[in-house]
Amino acid sequence: MAKIAVLGYGVVGSGTVEVFYKNKESLERKAGQELDIKYILDLRDFPDSPYQDKFVKDFDVILNDDEVTVVAEVIGGLKPAFDYVKSALKAGKSVVTSNKEMVAAKGAELLETAKEHKVNFFFEASVGGGIPIIKPLHACLSANEIDEIAGILNGTTNFILTKMIRDGMGFDEALKIAQELGYAERNPSADVDGHDACRKICILASLAFGKHVYPDSVHTEGITKITLEDVEYCDSYDAKIKLIGCAKRENEDKISIGVFPAIIKNESQLAGVNDVFNAILVRGDATGDVVFYGKGAGKLPTASAVVSDIISAVKHSDTSLSLRWRDSEQDFIRGFGEFRCAHYIRLRANSVDVTKAVVKALFGHVEYLSAKKQPENELAFVTGVISEKEADDACAKAADGAEILGRIRVLDY
Amino acid sequence: MAKIAVLGYGVVGSGTVEVFYKNKESLERKAGQELDIKYILDLRDFPDSPYQDKFVKDFDVILNDDEVTVVAEVIGGLKPAFDYVKSALKAGKSVVTSNKEMVAAKGAELLETAKEHKVNFFFEASVGGGIPIIKPLHACLSANEIDEIAGILNGTTNFILTKMIRDGMGFDEALKIAQELGYAERNPSADVDGHDACRKICILASLAFGKHVYPDSVHTEGITKITLEDVEYCDSYDAKIKLIGCAKRENEDKISIGVFPAIIKNESQLAGVNDVFNAILVRGDATGDVVFYGKGAGKLPTASAVVSDIISAVKHSDTSLSLRWRDSEQDFIRGFGEFRCAHYIRLRANSVDVTKAVVKALFGHVEYLSAKKQPENELAFVTGVISEKEADDACAKAADGAEILGRIRVLDY
Repeated sequence: MAKIAVLGYGVVGSGTVEVFYKNKESLERKAGQELDIKYILDLRDFPDSPYQDKFVKDFDVILNDDEVTVVAEVIGGLKPAFDYVKSALKAGKSVVTSNKEMVAAKGAELLETAKEHKVNFFFEASVGGGIPIIKPLHACLSANEIDEIAGILNGTTNFILTKMIRDGMGFDEALKIAQELGYAERNPSADVDGHDACRKICILASLAFGKHVYPDSVHTEGITKITLEDVEYCDSYDAKIKLIGCAKRENEDKISIGVFPAIIKNESQLAGVNDVFNAILVRGDATGDVVFYGKGAGKLPTASAVVSDIISAVKHSDTSLSLRWRDSEQDFIRGFGEFRCAHYIRLRANSVDVTKAVVKALFGHVEYLSAKKQPENELAFVTGVISEKEADDACAKAADGAEILGRIRVLDY
Repeated sequence: MAKIAVLGYGVVGSGTVEVFYKNKESLERKAGQELDIKYILDLRDFPDSPYQDKFVKDFDVILNDDEVTVVAEVIGGLKPAFDYVKSALKAGKSVVTSNKEMVAAKGAELLETAKEHKVNFFFEASVGGGIPIIKPLHACLSANEIDEIAGILNGTTNFILTKMIRDGMGFDEALKIAQELGYAERNPSADVDGHDACRKICILASLAFGKHVYPDSVHTEGITKITLEDVEYCDSYDAKIKLIGCAKRENEDKISIGVFPAIIKNESQLAGVNDVFNAILVRGDATGDVVFYGKGAGKLPTASAVVSDIISAVKHSDTSLSLRWRDSEQDFIRGFGEFRCAHYIRLRANSVDVTKAVVKALFGHVEYLSAKKQPENELAFVTGVISEKEADDACAKAADGAEILGRIRVLDY
């Protein structure tokens, strides 16, 4: 009999309890033993809950109860979640979490603590909601060296971009609908500015490349500058704009990593990922490209990932799996000025002919795109693969006789 | 130090040895111990191989060597693979395999033997090549009741259909190219008649629904009857023809299962899966739709799945995981006559007006499709959702005044 404690009874917490009791019988079969949730920690009262007798407000009750062997932390944020998780691990309890902020900020430390105390620290729900990605990346792809990871990691921004692409809706209007549907917060910055996607690519990169990647060392851009004009030019290029988090092994000691809107050709598996869905592409040296697709958020998908981690933790109670990464030095991440890809550039020219000559001189051969209501003095084109610094320099020079209206990286997945 | 034996040095076997030694260092880190391949079993001689000293021709050498704790069976087929695997399990050695024929025919028995002897029997490589699907289905989705699984499970037929759809190439010509490229065997029956896909959906259904599904109880059709005319009509329907293996939980005691060409709307994640790629959609009650995409075959992708299973087997050497299913009775599978879906029907009418009236009387409201060079007396339409038996009956009646030229099921994934 394994006893579990759930920390936090918000959306994911109540979903976790719901999924657990709905599928309890099959979960026990899979775990090979009886299971029960003994405590639910929340400061609020839930007088109408059928789980009335399980609620506690003091974390120490859980910490000091040796019967509790697995703790599911679904509070979110760093405080007090981190302290709870750290002390639970030190007390010899395995912890599973959906808390991407905590894993991205403190993953290396918590994995080390788990190892020292011979317990597990699992976080499948922290990336990709209900999509199995952490365990497949760690276990199923263990025979591969991972060369590259790229994903649509944030459902809110993907919903907004899908509205812009499919319905020709402007960013502000699409954001408003996302807020009305509960996909976006009233303050949408964490989503639309790319911070949420950044935390997730940090977790994936840490796992794939074995060293902790901290969010503040990652070049991060959101989607607020994307316009319907850009969407239209991309249509003529058979491509879609997606918010991508990507990380690539450059050599033994360096990786490239970034979060930004990117143009993806329609033939890519990532281009067909619409609405609130997420997808993660993993490029392994033996297996080639593998893509995992599904709902990246939501009560039940996320809860199902938490519950499956609970089952894994129960089954491997005395095994510290090799899921871990080391802490890292700053110079593990290559400067973003060296990031290489093609660039889409849109500009307003004083003279189209002159500007085309300048573009050729600065960027070499480029591919010009078109849009339905393209103004006469507007040009949009895709360059060859150049570094970020080269693109910056050339754009600065081009801005002499033309106004740069938009610039989006073009990725090849 | 764990010692491994590889049975068979064909495409997958040599790939397994290659991937193992290429990534040996990181594999040992992941396994937490030193690893080596002690034996390679093959009846042939490989005088130029760098692994000269590892080759043996007598399986008993491996069986009787207590140092060998993990056996990778990549011979394929039932004989002698099954005897080797069974006796290895009985001797207390874990077995990993890429052999879909053996798992589909003998999975329940081998899982039971593995359980009795407290060892593992893993078969990630038997479905979806390098795509992690068996372990995610078993472990990561453990919190879900699986309601449905559908997949593009055979790369050869998907390559042929992609050639037909993209390049307007006929079946015979596309098959010839597949053979030239080494994607299809000289005798292509196992692929184009659906038997390979059938074995894979049997394995997935057995795992998802907990009872062994035997290939000979599954309605199986191949792609040999698909014509370019059908492809064209589907184009006007915004859909693609794919060879699909699908299984669905109908109630506590029954599942539906089948392998056949099916029409899939372009907005489905399965419609964008081209060339030799595979994809598997899993519909869970909590997580919703999750899709796994990647290379379904090939030396290195398949070998990487074998090697990752070897690592899992080494790490969980004394744990018999709950990966298993029971043997089943025939009545576990619902008769295919009760299978329900929409149907695409193409027919040559004696009189278009009369036939349209007959179609309305027999099928109710249908959606008519069009094709560029559509003959005047040809009709193609999609029915509502009806059972197989209803479709058979209505088609038999319609055949009175019209010739049925084609009929393809329409699935909604």
